Amino acid sequence: MNVTVKPEYIEADGTTLTGRFPVSFELEGYSSGKRRNDVKVGMVEPARLQLWDLASDEGRFHGGDETAPKPLALFTAGVVTCFMTQMRTFARQCGVQVRGLNTKARFEWYAQRNGQDPYVAHPNKFVLDIEFDTDSSLEAQKHLIRTAAKGCFAEQILSVDLVHRLKHGDEWVVCELD
Amino acid sequence: MNVTVKPEYIEADGTTLTGRFPVSFELEGYSSGKRRNDVKVGMVEPARLQLWDLASDEGRFHGGDETAPKPLALFTAGVVTCFMTQMRTFARQCGVQVRGLNTKARFEWYAQRNGQDPYVAHPNKFVLDIEFDTDSSLEAQKHLIRTAAKGCFAEQILSVDLVHRLKHGDEWVVCELD
Repeated sequence: MNVTVKPEYIEADGTTLTGRFPVSFELEGYSSGKRRNDVKVGMVEPARLQLWDLASDEGRFHGGDETAPKPLALFTAGVVTCFMTQMRTFARQCGVQVRGLNTKARFEWYAQRNGQDPYVAHPNKFVLDIEFDTDSSLEAQKHLIRTAAKGCFAEQILSVDLVHRLKHGDEWVVCELD
Repeated sequence: MNVTVKPEYIEADGTTLTGRFPVSFELEGYSSGKRRNDVKVGMVEPARLQLWDLASDEGRFHGGDETAPKPLALFTAGVVTCFMTQMRTFARQCGVQVRGLNTKARFEWYAQRNGQDPYVAHPNKFVLDIEFDTDSSLEAQKHLIRTAAKGCFAEQILSVDLVHRLKHGDEWVVCELD
């Protein structure tokens, strides 16, 4: 992780937005050599924020130069950080006082190639492990995870079941979302 | 876009992987102040590649410091660059000779908040515009888009319909995937 950033947790305010509001992003991109892609991307609604330069590349075994993260590294980071952000957005409202938040995730797909046909991508298993530094009850933490899942824009458009596991003492507890 | 990278398109080889193969990513992250998250993420299967430091932050109107892209900027970039990569992976196999590839995307959600309850995220509209620099036929390009969609690990786990539009002359042609 970025060594220039201290792992300091600062309690976040909840959202003040009400009713129905749009959340939109725009991207422009181009292929920039071998397997690299360069994109410019940012929020346009409800507020226009700065655009960010991001890039993807492939490893050498896929014909790239590994000058940037693979697309699925960006994707995985997008899903997990969206979820982390929403856990913080809704923590206070769910009665969970958080002093720290750590996550681990493993996203697994497989590809199936029949003969020399182009391969087809399939989902396999998607697990997100969550560890709060908190004195709040397990029930309150589970409530927060359910709330964050419903408020997570990324998870809400995934067709796969993301398994959420919560560290409780020395155990990992699976949180059912329903 | 990154001004240090020239928009040079280099034709990519197709994949040499065959049969069934795993594609897995691992991530570790922590909340690092106000609304920022820092993560380390990378591929672990079929090959262990280097880990990348990525971060997310929120705009000031969401209580962040905008020190990094928003999570959904990472997510949008992940989906689109995965698709762009697969268009290049399968171009030759689909009989499309590409000299350049540009994309534009707009991903729209909305949030619905009833009273003071936590808001719930909903999908709205997801559009990906694709422009090849190519002399290949429209049919061959459509075939490539269908093939890339099936091989795109990110799109394959989205529950929403991603609308793919292809620039053909001065028009935008919607590509049906079925």
